[in-house]
Amino acid sequence: MIYAAILGHGVVGSGAAEILEESRAQIGEKIKDELVIKYILDLRDFPDTPYHEKFTKDFSKIVQDPEVRIVAEAMGGLNPAYDFVKQCLLAGKSVVTSNKELVAAKGCELLAIAQEKNVNFLFEASVGGGIPILRPMAQCLSANNITDIIGILNGTTNYILNKMVTENMSFEDALKLAQEKGFAEKNPAADIEGHDACRKICILAALGFGKHVYPEQVKTEGITEVTADDVEAAENFNCVIKLIARAKKNADGTISAYVRPTVMLRDHILSNVNGVNNAIMVIGDRTGPVMFYGKGAGKFPTASAVVADMMDCAKHLSARKYLSWDEGHEGYVTESDEPTQLYVTAHSDDVEKLCEEIRAAYPPELWYIKNRVNGTVTFITPYQRESELLAQIHRFPADHFKIFHTLF
Amino acid sequence: MIYAAILGHGVVGSGAAEILEESRAQIGEKIKDELVIKYILDLRDFPDTPYHEKFTKDFSKIVQDPEVRIVAEAMGGLNPAYDFVKQCLLAGKSVVTSNKELVAAKGCELLAIAQEKNVNFLFEASVGGGIPILRPMAQCLSANNITDIIGILNGTTNYILNKMVTENMSFEDALKLAQEKGFAEKNPAADIEGHDACRKICILAALGFGKHVYPEQVKTEGITEVTADDVEAAENFNCVIKLIARAKKNADGTISAYVRPTVMLRDHILSNVNGVNNAIMVIGDRTGPVMFYGKGAGKFPTASAVVADMMDCAKHLSARKYLSWDEGHEGYVTESDEPTQLYVTAHSDDVEKLCEEIRAAYPPELWYIKNRVNGTVTFITPYQRESELLAQIHRFPADHFKIFHTLF
Repeated sequence: MIYAAILGHGVVGSGAAEILEESRAQIGEKIKDELVIKYILDLRDFPDTPYHEKFTKDFSKIVQDPEVRIVAEAMGGLNPAYDFVKQCLLAGKSVVTSNKELVAAKGCELLAIAQEKNVNFLFEASVGGGIPILRPMAQCLSANNITDIIGILNGTTNYILNKMVTENMSFEDALKLAQEKGFAEKNPAADIEGHDACRKICILAALGFGKHVYPEQVKTEGITEVTADDVEAAENFNCVIKLIARAKKNADGTISAYVRPTVMLRDHILSNVNGVNNAIMVIGDRTGPVMFYGKGAGKFPTASAVVADMMDCAKHLSARKYLSWDEGHEGYVTESDEPTQLYVTAHSDDVEKLCEEIRAAYPPELWYIKNRVNGTVTFITPYQRESELLAQIHRFPADHFKIFHTLF
Repeated sequence: MIYAAILGHGVVGSGAAEILEESRAQIGEKIKDELVIKYILDLRDFPDTPYHEKFTKDFSKIVQDPEVRIVAEAMGGLNPAYDFVKQCLLAGKSVVTSNKELVAAKGCELLAIAQEKNVNFLFEASVGGGIPILRPMAQCLSANNITDIIGILNGTTNYILNKMVTENMSFEDALKLAQEKGFAEKNPAADIEGHDACRKICILAALGFGKHVYPEQVKTEGITEVTADDVEAAENFNCVIKLIARAKKNADGTISAYVRPTVMLRDHILSNVNGVNNAIMVIGDRTGPVMFYGKGAGKFPTASAVVADMMDCAKHLSARKYLSWDEGHEGYVTESDEPTQLYVTAHSDDVEKLCEEIRAAYPPELWYIKNRVNGTVTFITPYQRESELLAQIHRFPADHFKIFHTLF
């Protein structure tokens, strides 16, 4: 018999409790032991659950109970999750979590404590919900040097952008619909401003490249500035706009990392990731690109990943899994000025003149096509250093430029 | 120092040897020990490799050397691979393999021996080359009941079908091109007749559903009968034809499994898996569909998966990984007669009459559109039991029917 505790009885925590109850026999068979919830920590009361007698409001009962070997943290947020997780690890308990904010901010420290105490700290559910990604990266791709990680890591924003494409909705209407459907929270800032995707790319980058990346180090832009016009113009180029999170290894050992709305061709496999789905493309020097796809959130997908981690802890109570990364540092995440193509919408009251100048500056290929809606011209630049492109673009006779990065 | 041997110095074996040499330091750091090749078994001589002194033609030297703890089998084929792997396991060595034929035919027996001897038998590279799939299925999805596995598991046939779509090639020309590019072997039977995909779906089904599935139990159809006309007609329905391997759990505990060319809508995410790529969609009751995508073959993708398995063995020399399934049995794989839609091309010298009757029999929706090329009509049936559909179809006044299954 292996005793566990769950911290938090919200969406993910209650899902994990349900799975552990419902699939008790099946889980027991797989781990060759019985995994039993001893406590559920929550400040609220849940008198109607079949396991109401397991609830406690007192964290110290859990951390001080030597019988509890595994703790699942599903409270979310930094506080008090950080303090609770740290105490559990220090008390020699293995901890699993779905809390991306916690792992992105404190992962390195918590992994070090786990190592010191010879216990496990696992967090598969923190990125991509139920999509297996962290374990495959750490284990199956271990004979690779990972060079690049590109992901659609936030289902809410992907849903919104998708609705803007398929149903010509405005950003505001699509957001409202997402809220009605329960895909976006009442306060959607963490999603639509890119912070959620940022935390996830920090975790992926740390695992893939070996050093902690802090959310503050990652240039993060959300989708609030993407308009129906932008989406429509992109379609003229057979492109879609996706919120892309990316972390890339540079030759000098630093990395580039960002979250930003990105214009990509429809034949890129990531462009077909629709609705609330997530996808993560990991590029290894030996495998080339491999992609992981599925529902990136939701009660049972995420809870099933938490339970799988608990099962893994149960199987490794004495043998620690090798999972760790080094502390990050200032200057580790840099801005790259690599050759790229930019996607530009320029506004001018004299569209004809603007078109003429663009036509004169760039070779007459497919790389710019005008779109005369609202006095704007949209074009895709040639492939050049970003700094040079920006200088070039701003010489055009326009009163306003809107610039997207691309992924072709 | 952990000693290993590699059986076979072909494409995959030589790739594994190269990775182990080139990434020695990095691998050592990850497994906190040194992984060293002591022997390479091959009947040929390779005097120019930097590790030529490791070659032997004598298998008994390897199996009798107690210092060798890990053996990578990369010879392919059933014999003598089966005998060699069995002997190594019986001698208490962990074995990894990329040999799908071996695992599909003997996996259950070899896993049982590994269990008895408390060693590991791993075969991540046997399905999907460098794509992580078996370990994520077994570990990350362990809190799920897997209900369905759908894959594009053979890169050669996917490449051929893709060329038929994008460049209007005939099957024969596309096959020839694949051979020239090294994507298809001189004797392409195992690929184009579906046997390779069959072996892989057997392995996936065994791991996902817990019982061995033998290739003879899986109805297997290749792509040799798919014509340029079929591909073109499918495009009229916004569809593509893919070689799909599938294994599905039935309510009575049996499974349905097949390999066959399948018509699918272009907005299905699997329809966008192009070129020599593979993709495997696994449907769990709690995660919903998750998909794994990447290069399904090739020297370094596959070899990197072999090396990752060797590293995993090195980390688990004393702690066996839980990986096994039960023996299969007759009657376990059944043919389903579930509701489906069929994609039918009917030939008649009197196309007008044929159209009339189809129009009379089916509701006048988009489900059939005629295509008058060569006196044929192509239509998609309504959603009904397969047996009923077949009876219905054969009552139409046509002298020849060609029927594809669909995945919508």
